[in-house]
Parts: sequence; C-alpha cells; structure tokens
Amino acid sequence: MELFKVHGVEEAKELLGQYFQDFTLAVEELPIEQALGRYLAEDVISQIDVPHFRRSTVDGYAVLAKDTVGASESMPVFLLVSEEVEMGREAKSKLTSGQAAYVPTGGMLPGGADSVVMVEYTEKLDATGIAVHYTTAPKENVVEIGDDIRKGSHVLQKGLKIRPQDIGVLASIGLSTVKVFQKPKFAVISTGDEIVSPDEEAKPGQIKDINTFTLAAMVEAAGGVVVAKDVVKDNFTLLKQTIESVMTDSDIIILSGGSSVGTKDIVPKVINAVGEPGVFVHGISIKPGKPTIMAKAGGKPIFGLPGHPTSAMIVFKVFVEYFIKTLMQNDELDKFIMGELAVNVHSAQGRETYQMVTLEKSGDKYIVKPVYGKSGFITLMSKAIGYIKIPINQEGLTKGEKVKVYLF
Amino acid sequence: MELFKVHGVEEAKELLGQYFQDFTLAVEELPIEQALGRYLAEDVISQIDVPHFRRSTVDGYAVLAKDTVGASESMPVFLLVSEEVEMGREAKSKLTSGQAAYVPTGGMLPGGADSVVMVEYTEKLDATGIAVHYTTAPKENVVEIGDDIRKGSHVLQKGLKIRPQDIGVLASIGLSTVKVFQKPKFAVISTGDEIVSPDEEAKPGQIKDINTFTLAAMVEAAGGVVVAKDVVKDNFTLLKQTIESVMTDSDIIILSGGSSVGTKDIVPKVINAVGEPGVFVHGISIKPGKPTIMAKAGGKPIFGLPGHPTSAMIVFKVFVEYFIKTLMQNDELDKFIMGELAVNVHSAQGRETYQMVTLEKSGDKYIVKPVYGKSGFITLMSKAIGYIKIPINQEGLTKGEKVKVYLF
Repeated sequence: MELFKVHGVEEAKELLGQYFQDFTLAVEELPIEQALGRYLAEDVISQIDVPHFRRSTVDGYAVLAKDTVGASESMPVFLLVSEEVEMGREAKSKLTSGQAAYVPTGGMLPGGADSVVMVEYTEKLDATGIAVHYTTAPKENVVEIGDDIRKGSHVLQKGLKIRPQDIGVLASIGLSTVKVFQKPKFAVISTGDEIVSPDEEAKPGQIKDINTFTLAAMVEAAGGVVVAKDVVKDNFTLLKQTIESVMTDSDIIILSGGSSVGTKDIVPKVINAVGEPGVFVHGISIKPGKPTIMAKAGGKPIFGLPGHPTSAMIVFKVFVEYFIKTLMQNDELDKFIMGELAVNVHSAQGRETYQMVTLEKSGDKYIVKPVYGKSGFITLMSKAIGYIKIPINQEGLTKGEKVKVYLF
Repeated sequence: MELFKVHGVEEAKELLGQYFQDFTLAVEELPIEQALGRYLAEDVISQIDVPHFRRSTVDGYAVLAKDTVGASESMPVFLLVSEEVEMGREAKSKLTSGQAAYVPTGGMLPGGADSVVMVEYTEKLDATGIAVHYTTAPKENVVEIGDDIRKGSHVLQKGLKIRPQDIGVLASIGLSTVKVFQKPKFAVISTGDEIVSPDEEAKPGQIKDINTFTLAAMVEAAGGVVVAKDVVKDNFTLLKQTIESVMTDSDIIILSGGSSVGTKDIVPKVINAVGEPGVFVHGISIKPGKPTIMAKAGGKPIFGLPGHPTSAMIVFKVFVEYFIKTLMQNDELDKFIMGELAVNVHSAQGRETYQMVTLEKSGDKYIVKPVYGKSGFITLMSKAIGYIKIPINQEGLTKGEKVKVYLF
C-alpha cells in the first residue's frame, strides 16, 4: 500500500498550471450563428462605426435646433419641409436654416440637421409647411456616428463565452465569422470490475455504469466534446491499452474509479507506465474527492477521479472545469446565490468541504438546506441544486449564516 | 394610425395561456447520452432497487454486529474469515456467529452479516483468523437494498431540464433511453427596409441585421431549434408570403421590427391576413418592449417583437422563454443573484421596467450598476450581465436597496 502526499486545492491548481503552461487549444473560424457558447480566441476590434450615419431615435422632423429657440405650445415656429427620408435610404437634402425633413425612427438625418423634434410636437400645415411647438436642443433624439460602437474600439474580449447579444455585436460590426477555441476533445473512461452498462443486467455485486454518462454530460456542458467513452475492468494491461488507444485523438483524458489506495487500485501505476512525468498529484484535501489524481503523459493531462458519482462530479467541477476555463482564457466570475443556512453544517477535518444543498424561497430570501446521503448515492447530486464550500480551516457553518450557493 | 389597448405583463401571459392551452409539443425517445438540457416528457419511476444488493461503504470485514460487542483496542474479538468477496462478484457465504468476510468498498455483503468493521480496526492473525478491535453497530458502513433509490419510487419529474446528474440517475436505474419533449421549431424573421446582412455593405441609412442572429441564438439557448431564418422588407405581400412559407415546418414564429404604430408598420395587418384569430395582444405595459404583438394563425403562435435589439431580447426573455417553459411543463424557479444598487434607478411611468445592469463583487456582496445607452444600442445588452425588474406601480429604486439580478 503506497501512501501519498495530500495537496491543498489551490496548490493542486497551481501544479496543474505549471505542468500545462504550454498546453493550448487550436483555434477555428466559425460562422457567427454557430458560435453560441463557444469561447472567443481573439480580441474583437470594430473596423466600422455603429451607426455609420446619424440616426433618429423617434418619428419626427430633423431640424436645426437653433431654429426652434422659443418655440412652445402657444408660439410655434414655421419650417419648410425639404424631404421625407425613407427607412433604409440615404437622406438627400442638406438643411439650411428654416428647413426641416421628416425622419422615421431609425432613419438617417439629412446634412445640416442637428436635432429631431418628435412628430407629436409638430403640426402639418400644407404640402411643405409645418409648425413646431417645441424648443429642441442640439443632439436631442439623435444617435451620432459611432455612438454605439466606435471604429477601432475593443468590443469583445478574448476568452469571452459567447452569448446571443455578443453574436449581435459581431453582426452589427459586419463580421459573419469569428475565431473561437476548438472544443477540447475528451476521453472518458470508467474503471471497475463491478461496472456493467445500463442495459446489461446487473448481477449481485455488479452496478450500472453511471460515471461515463455523468462525466460525458459534464464535458458537454462545460464546452468540451467527448470523442471516446469506455468502461474497463481493473486490469493493468487492459487499462493501459485503453488509455494508449485514446491518447492520439483526445486532448484530455478523464478516468474514474480505482484512484484510492487499495489492493486493486492500479490507476496511478498504469498512468506512470503510459508516459512521463506521470502522476504529479495523488490526493487532495477536498471532501468529497480526496483520492484525486492529476497526471501528464504524452504531453496530455490525465485526471483520475474517484469512483463515487458525487465525488467524481465535484472533482470535475473544481478541477476539470477550472482547467477548461484556463485553456479558454475565460475569467468570468463564479456565479452564486446568497442564502441563509437552515441548520448547522459540519465540515471534514483538514479538507475543503463541498456540501450539496437545495434552495427554498422564503419571501425575498433563499433558505439553504443540506442534502445528505450515504457515500456513493447518485440521488445525492440529483436532489441538490448546487453546493456550498466550507474552507479548510473552518470547523463548520452555523444555522442562519449567509452562504454562497454555487449552482450545478 | 391605429391605437391599441395595452395589456399588463401578467395579463398578456394569461391570454397566451388561454389561446394556446391545447398547444403541445410531440415527444421523442432519445438515448440518455443525448438528453442533456432536454425536458423530460414523463415522470420517471424506478423499476429496480438501487443498490440491488447490500454494499459496504468501506474496505473491511463484514460481521454480525453482536459478535463485536465489547471489542476494543485492548480487548479484541477473534473471528474466522469465511470468504474474501471480490468487486463485482456475488458473495457466496452465509455468515454465522463467529465468522467474518473481507469486503472491499462497494462490494457485496454476504448473507448473515449486518455490519462492516473498517480494515483499520482489524488485524490479520493467520490465513483465516482476524482480531477485531472495535464494537460495531448493526448497519454501520452498510448500504441496504434500495437505500439510494427504492423500486417503484418517483425519481425524476416530468418537465425537468435534464442535468448530468439526472442522466446518472437514469443510467443507475437501467434506462438507456428517455422520453423528452421535441425541441420547438422556430422561424425567425426580421422585417425592415433598412436591414442588410452582416457581410453586405451597409449604405447610408442601412444597418446590419442583428435580430435574426440574437433571436436565433436565444431560441437555441432556450432549448428550441431554428428551422427558418429570413430578413424581409416592409412589404405586405412579401411578408405575408414569407410567413406562409414557414408556417408548415415551424411550431412558433418570431417576427421582429415593424410592430410599432407607424406608417409602414404592416406586421399586425399581415398577421391578421394570414389566419384567424390573428392578433390578440398588441401593446404590453413593459419597458422596453411596449409595441409587442401576440397572435395566433393556423393554430400556431406568432410573436411580433420590437425592432430594437435590446427590446426584442427582453421581450423574448419575458414572453417567449416563458411560453417554452410552459410547453415543457417546467416549473423551475427563476434564478437570481441578490445585489445592492450603486445608484438610484428610475422606472417608466405605468410600465414594468427592465433595467440592464452589471455586477461588481465587493467583499461578500454584489454591487449592481445600471447600464444605460440610447434606444437601439446593441452594446447595451452586451455590456450587461443581466437585468433587474421594477414593478409597474413603483416609481423607482433607491441607492443601497437590495435587488434581484436575473442573469442572461
């Protein structure tokens, strides 16, 4: 039985960063309509002004503001209409003092005009004359060239996870394609003599494969793609062959099961036999997830996750998702919901503890309740909406305490 | 110019519910590994117990608890090992008093045993004898049959948006496929004489198409699929033909632009010409988004959204996403983050106001800052992380007030 040195959570993340500081993902160029949820691989600089012409924000008359000075409900100013600008068409006239032009919302202002009076404050007198009952200021109801996006400005940041509105920004500056990081390609392998696939009959002593399903779905949710999936018995040769067979086509390899220190736990030995430098972390002060492995072989990261579904998922969240975000150069804040603990919660001595919880609305606040279950329960994760973290040096949390709930 | 009756937000949702109470989505059966993010179309009842055999949660010796009464560090009890149970194999023995069996974590307990003593509290004496230094209680370190999931129990609820752990639950109860609602098929059509596609040159007066891109991405993010996308000039015949051409293959039609009351705003007329009963809501007391249209033609919902990108996106969030969730029978809580307003925020008289905001972390709380921009700015949405709602009868919000931020 080999004993391993346990690393802190931050220490393990730092080692991961050191071992993979040169590890990067390729970049691909996609049509913007296929870029939702992908990560920007370049800073986006606008090559144009948006808008690229002066637009009205209302239906009204473009005027020279100085012509309307003193105009009011009872004291109109009279102007001559030189043009009715149409949507999508260039304004042709160049207004001089005493002139106005009709402009619809979003329409182009003619030259010379510096303001738009809403149609509600005007009165049509005849074919060409209007009365204006409002003193307008320069720039009122006008969007200037580049007001929304200025040519040369930095509009979107490398590493951004692209949302619908970001695709809108790309469209608005005339880009129909965008450079994003390729999805990291994952191999997901479960090990264990007891595991059978869901549609096989599980005999006494056997259980259905859960981890390849949950972990593959987590890869997908985190922006990766699963290129290989397998369940392997706890057999040195078989497991080594399986890892070697997926190495070429995968960027990242996830194993689950067989990482704790026991008689048949061959995972670290197999990884060390696959390539140099092999295992560099074996054991992290986190609960659940203590027997986690981090390794490098053939230049690629290999994560050895615990076999229990909940432990495997938490370790994936804390380390694999973190690693993906690092590769994507994404620095978004973790999103959490503040809530109030319904009961005291204990922590594990000397380990950063992740406690599954549910949320209940109570007026304007959330009540946070821990979800407990025996080790290995799959329903533990399914009943929970998220988790709270208890730092390594804290004994526990007290009923009524405000806590951050991180959602799955 | 036709004046329309403005409906409240809740009133508009109720009308939507009434007009489409019989509108449902077809159900399809998918392999569980393709079900991430889809909505369950059936309650899932387990046909099996999980686990279906008694499992140990530790590496240790299965015993009869009563045999260990009084055992301690200094006073061991001696037992005879009848079997070493292997992972994934059925335990063969049936223990009687005085016997024990080695069981690995996750392994099967032999008959007769009712507790497991951790290996750390035992000592191997010879090939078949062990000393036990611990008094164990019945059920200690044991997962009973059905402890995780009981046969016949309701494990997942119809309408659930499937997460990785839910796929794990499906796998654990032996299901390799699951029934989910089909993705609603959307047609997304932008109208406007001024709109050109992103890769076309926008002449003075013209702007790039944004809405078909942002709305199509929102459809995708909300669990729908876009089957048709088009940009149409503000022309009655053209728009009518376009809507009619997408009616057969779409479940839901989204129009944007041309919904406000102006000279060229032909959308409501076209919809009424397409089919009965036509427009049933035109105007909602919401800001932005007042000129929103809801309609029914050919039995299908047609949403007429405003032309401004931000308005169109907010109306999509508030009504179209709500409608999709209703179709999916999903009753998840809206998720929000509590934050503190950095400044006073004003609301629009007589309208439920949606104010775009950003979040800044300040110690353990979030500071909420409004994002302002002129009407029609696309960067308004892109700079924001979410929005706050100000109820219709509230004048505004005060600096320092706690507010709920809904994330995009």
